[in-house]
Amino acid sequence: MKLQRKDVLGLEEMDVEEIRQILQTAKVMKGILMRPIKKLPTLKGKSVVNLFYEASTRTRTSFEMAAKVLGADTTSIAVAQSSVSKGESLYDTAKTIQAMRADLVILRHSSSGSASFLADILDAGVINAGDGQHEHPTQALLDIFTMEEKLGDLEGKNVVIVGDVLHSRVARSNVWGLRKLGVNVTLVGPPTLAPAEMGGLGVKLTHDLDSVLPGADVVMALRLQLERQKSGLFPSLREYSHLYGLTSERLKKTGKQSVVMHPGPMNRGVEISDEVADSAQALIERQVTNGVAIRMALIYLLIGGSANVVA
Amino acid sequence: MKLQRKDVLGLEEMDVEEIRQILQTAKVMKGILMRPIKKLPTLKGKSVVNLFYEASTRTRTSFEMAAKVLGADTTSIAVAQSSVSKGESLYDTAKTIQAMRADLVILRHSSSGSASFLADILDAGVINAGDGQHEHPTQALLDIFTMEEKLGDLEGKNVVIVGDVLHSRVARSNVWGLRKLGVNVTLVGPPTLAPAEMGGLGVKLTHDLDSVLPGADVVMALRLQLERQKSGLFPSLREYSHLYGLTSERLKKTGKQSVVMHPGPMNRGVEISDEVADSAQALIERQVTNGVAIRMALIYLLIGGSANVVA
Amino acid sequence: MKLQRKDVLGLEEMDVEEIRQILQTAKVMKGILMRPIKKLPTLKGKSVVNLFYEASTRTRTSFEMAAKVLGADTTSIAVAQSSVSKGESLYDTAKTIQAMRADLVILRHSSSGSASFLADILDAGVINAGDGQHEHPTQALLDIFTMEEKLGDLEGKNVVIVGDVLHSRVARSNVWGLRKLGVNVTLVGPPTLAPAEMGGLGVKLTHDLDSVLPGADVVMALRLQLERQKSGLFPSLREYSHLYGLTSERLKKTGKQSVVMHPGPMNRGVEISDEVADSAQALIERQVTNGVAIRMALIYLLIGGSANVVA
Repeated sequence: MKLQRKDVLGLEEMDVEEIRQILQTAKVMKGILMRPIKKLPTLKGKSVVNLFYEASTRTRTSFEMAAKVLGADTTSIAVAQSSVSKGESLYDTAKTIQAMRADLVILRHSSSGSASFLADILDAGVINAGDGQHEHPTQALLDIFTMEEKLGDLEGKNVVIVGDVLHSRVARSNVWGLRKLGVNVTLVGPPTLAPAEMGGLGVKLTHDLDSVLPGADVVMALRLQLERQKSGLFPSLREYSHLYGLTSERLKKTGKQSVVMHPGPMNRGVEISDEVADSAQALIERQVTNGVAIRMALIYLLIGGSANVVA
Repeated sequence: MKLQRKDVLGLEEMDVEEIRQILQTAKVMKGILMRPIKKLPTLKGKSVVNLFYEASTRTRTSFEMAAKVLGADTTSIAVAQSSVSKGESLYDTAKTIQAMRADLVILRHSSSGSASFLADILDAGVINAGDGQHEHPTQALLDIFTMEEKLGDLEGKNVVIVGDVLHSRVARSNVWGLRKLGVNVTLVGPPTLAPAEMGGLGVKLTHDLDSVLPGADVVMALRLQLERQKSGLFPSLREYSHLYGLTSERLKKTGKQSVVMHPGPMNRGVEISDEVADSAQALIERQVTNGVAIRMALIYLLIGGSANVVA
Repeated sequence: MKLQRKDVLGLEEMDVEEIRQILQTAKVMKGILMRPIKKLPTLKGKSVVNLFYEASTRTRTSFEMAAKVLGADTTSIAVAQSSVSKGESLYDTAKTIQAMRADLVILRHSSSGSASFLADILDAGVINAGDGQHEHPTQALLDIFTMEEKLGDLEGKNVVIVGDVLHSRVARSNVWGLRKLGVNVTLVGPPTLAPAEMGGLGVKLTHDLDSVLPGADVVMALRLQLERQKSGLFPSLREYSHLYGLTSERLKKTGKQSVVMHPGPMNRGVEISDEVADSAQALIERQVTNGVAIRMALIYLLIGGSANVVA
């Protein structure tokens, strides 16, 4: 029942069997989550600590709710990034949390590789809730879960990911996971945000969204970090939106009732129009629900798993 | 047992029967709250989310404790008002919280009407914990509960509310509730904070506190927002205090052992003297206790209510 | 079973029997804490409120985890010190928390004596989690617990506490506790941080660390508040480190396998070298674990204690 690992750091390191086991467990967890009374005693007496060096209400709340549904105790520690320099090192903070008998640490940190660093020094389990521009495995797993829920077996399906793929840990984790499941992935963005080097390894890369929409089963818009415009990484919001924003008109080019996804929070009117965001094609709220189910599955598989899930 | 509504947005929209049902349920809840072991399993597996766009430790903690006594899981989300502009809309945030399977959202927001907006777009229940200058129904319900507990049937009783009634959602909600219960309400304040237009509809309005004290069963001082002085809405703290501050001397004019109330936090020495605040007449701490009981009742009536309260 | 007091304010006021009872209870609590399923139903229906006027993730989290293991409900209230002036007084805040039916308030405050002030006005129990430069009793109790766990009976043992003893509530509480247990305590620091007046009362005081190391069973480094350098209280980090920093070389002078302790968070390379901090001699992580056990014991002894601990 348990995963043969103590940490979940990224999808690069996972094999297909593990991914399937997680998705399978998440299906059971979603069933529990959708009940009117959503509570299991499974992880009573286990302690889950959210250690967040970047603000993220959405991800933190999702992990917190997932742990609570499973009956675990949760504590959240928000470390202001700005004061890190004068504060304790990640090493000492993590050792301290473990010494308080935490069973699992959920880490969000701006440095790529920080989750792996933590996993190496701790006996407690570690889940990567986003490390720099490296990976955000729970986001990719919930994306994949949502696609499968809607489309069935994903092998041979066409997924287009559009936006700032260069800086996106969401895109990276999705590429790793989707490729392992035999999905055709296309990354799209302006040259500064989607450089040619990101192509290859079975991933198509282009700067022209309209040319790759025909046949797309899924179109995933990434959140545009608006502060990147100041650094000149794209010319203007208006132009970005014109070339890469998802509109109803543009989506017709897929020739299918394609699924639209977004990791949130959305910049409405920039990377996605109101009409698309609120359409039946968009599974954005369902992604959020599935995110709780995926996190329940991972927490359960890492620190529970000795007893059967009461279904 | 359940209220015939999914949301509690204000007392304007409630009829007398509903108000009576809430007060009755709160009485049972207070009995549970006063036990040495204050815990019910009633709302186990239910999820209550505090969504606060204005800081309010007092109200947030009260709701959190109420939900925990009933066995619900709670999560708090504090959104800094200043960063709202660059952040996600209230609409998307609320939809996201609901997608995480929250059963009830407690909203505090600086915009009048925001709670009603939320209630319209969510299937989950919404309790208004204060929306702009509109309503603060749980405060008024706890005030009414406290008055009844002390004075019995409130019909025909005289309640004087003194302070910045113009900007006060506490005053507005109290006026709606008290009028429905047949209470004579008098609003008092300087002309800039209690304009003549607020009179009528069965509410007396005056700028002269001393003239309306005789016969008052309840005198409720509102918190003075000290920053209003800068905008010239009242001449000076000293003058305000002289004309409207509750002192022992002034309270003698009621000719009764009147009840003194304040929603807190108090500006001691401004709207209320230390002597009055700490006197036996003042029910300010009791209001706080009753606030937890009222919130327990509302949470229970909105998302519990299928089982009987274990009394 | 219960302590004959409702509050834990400091070790100055405790007698040896009480200290022994707390250490004994903490031993049982540590046994529970080290289990794979660490949960007792003992304090179900009890409410513990963390009221922190100074930021302290470490201490706040430790208390929170301790209360949760015992089954109590917990709520944390962080009051920004800067806004205290325009906010509610400690008195009114505490009365409000009690009115919400809190059973126990954990207070961290920058003013010496604030915990005692709170204990006087509340019927609820109060635990001092650090008040100004006065006392930090739970830190000293966990230090003493850790020393006893390692060294057995402490009578006649030699403990050296080095650093900014003048401003340290940790040092003060340790001195009170250790002296009562018959320990020889030596305080060491530069003249500005360890003035001669602190000697006497059975405590040795010196500015020369190397001279007092021979025979030391325990060497405890205090955290250096780096901002004190600006006020000229010590010449430079480099010089401080040279004279008072714990290095492997220096520790050899004890002539024993002395125990090294630090209340955390550490300034590595200042008051303690990496080599020492990560050595087998250093019990710094064990102190953290024992801190949860001590806090479990205190919470249990103050607001539980009617039932036996399920061992």
